[in-house]
Amino acid sequence: MAYLLRGENGDMNNKPLILVTNDDGIEAKGLKELIMVAREFGDVVVISSREAMSGMSHAITIKVPLRVKLVKEEPGFKKYLTNGTPVDGVKLAFNSILGRRPDLVLSGINHGSNSSSSILYSGTMAAAMEGAINHIPSIGFSLLSFDSDADFSSSAGVLREVIRMVMERGLPDGICLNVNIPAVSAKEIKGIRMCSQANGFWKEEFEKRTDPNGQEYYWLTGFFHNREPDGGGTETDEWALKHHYVSVVPINTDLTAYSMLEKMKSWDLASVKNEG
Amino acid sequence: MAYLLRGENGDMNNKPLILVTNDDGIEAKGLKELIMVAREFGDVVVISSREAMSGMSHAITIKVPLRVKLVKEEPGFKKYLTNGTPVDGVKLAFNSILGRRPDLVLSGINHGSNSSSSILYSGTMAAAMEGAINHIPSIGFSLLSFDSDADFSSSAGVLREVIRMVMERGLPDGICLNVNIPAVSAKEIKGIRMCSQANGFWKEEFEKRTDPNGQEYYWLTGFFHNREPDGGGTETDEWALKHHYVSVVPINTDLTAYSMLEKMKSWDLASVKNEG
Repeated sequence: MAYLLRGENGDMNNKPLILVTNDDGIEAKGLKELIMVAREFGDVVVISSREAMSGMSHAITIKVPLRVKLVKEEPGFKKYLTNGTPVDGVKLAFNSILGRRPDLVLSGINHGSNSSSSILYSGTMAAAMEGAINHIPSIGFSLLSFDSDADFSSSAGVLREVIRMVMERGLPDGICLNVNIPAVSAKEIKGIRMCSQANGFWKEEFEKRTDPNGQEYYWLTGFFHNREPDGGGTETDEWALKHHYVSVVPINTDLTAYSMLEKMKSWDLASVKNEG
Repeated sequence: MAYLLRGENGDMNNKPLILVTNDDGIEAKGLKELIMVAREFGDVVVISSREAMSGMSHAITIKVPLRVKLVKEEPGFKKYLTNGTPVDGVKLAFNSILGRRPDLVLSGINHGSNSSSSILYSGTMAAAMEGAINHIPSIGFSLLSFDSDADFSSSAGVLREVIRMVMERGLPDGICLNVNIPAVSAKEIKGIRMCSQANGFWKEEFEKRTDPNGQEYYWLTGFFHNREPDGGGTETDEWALKHHYVSVVPINTDLTAYSMLEKMKSWDLASVKNEG
């Protein structure tokens, strides 16, 4: 498709326009790493928040007015600060900042895994999905380390490779990529694997405490539980990451379970009209 | 499957245990309507927040401790108030309140549509998806009216019908139902249709204002844009609702775009190891 290379959006200098965001806040090391690589591919506009927005998923801000502030500008680069969520930031960029449709949306690099069902809680991936809903090729990147000073030295090569492929081949409308990078050295990364989302969930173990006023409260803690059978599951992101591969999962923003839909058409639900 | 009717979870009275939640707050009219119908089917535990959590999507609360308070108890019924998001509430219920796995998770009735891609922003549907991730049959209900005093008189019959079918037939692990009800009288509802998620998106038009200190801010506004062709799309939820059918969309919590995954396996990404 070479969507990006056509410069079809009428940009004067024909450079791709790349929107970059994240959910770990504007000072996050992972964001800086992503910006560095993104700038090799085109003009970059960054929008992010002062505070981390982890766990914000696809949340949008309705009750509070949104603020946007240009905090840095140089040739081919602008950086905006917002009080909004990652999805708010993408919406603001599309509608009030960029001036034209971007050619690519990049989100991350998240500090921590967004593999398997973790994607559902992820602000990083929600930003990429918001790009996909708007039919912009979009990629979310995550490194499997929650450390704010994580070692991103293995990431640049992965980012370049995946971004290059998406620029060359494009992505179908409504589909974005969820890229997770094992927290190992570049030498230890075995390659990139196209994967499915592993069947897993977060098993919570709320930690119950009592505050100084004698009131109980809970902290959300938990661990990821992979349901894939031990011997199999070699097609999943969890398997790939465990074996030091980068996992790339194509993510659908159409959540319809089509195989189930076909079965459900035989369900006898016609009587509602008379019962309603 | 008759999952619910087996009482396999060891409940003394063999009644199904039903978790009910929403994202419009504990006093919402739609929640009360859902509770009324749910109690016809089993013991009901409600968890909700004081304030509305619309637009919270699958957000979870990490930075603030969670509080839970039992605010009402009578035979076969308990109601809890929490400061958490809808997904927090489901997690708290599963792990710290219910005492055993529930047989069903019901969310809603939302005041306002969650059809098409609106599902991605919806706290109502995120709660149902959280149930599905945990392999509990789960249903989210929404009425197409944002009015806090909306007329839910057409809803009870729909709810009974859909809940009864799910209790009889169960749902596959990882799949929940997104049920939207047109805001018309029971007589005007033409029936229930099994649908796919319409291809649409929210087109934002941020309203820019200036505060008393001369600072600019934005309010998030927008309108839904349906991409389905005018003549077609009769299989989608948007079509069904426009024609006064209840729409039922089976929703996958595995977001993998499998058809794209097959194509991507031919992508040449093997070189990353040497470039990393």
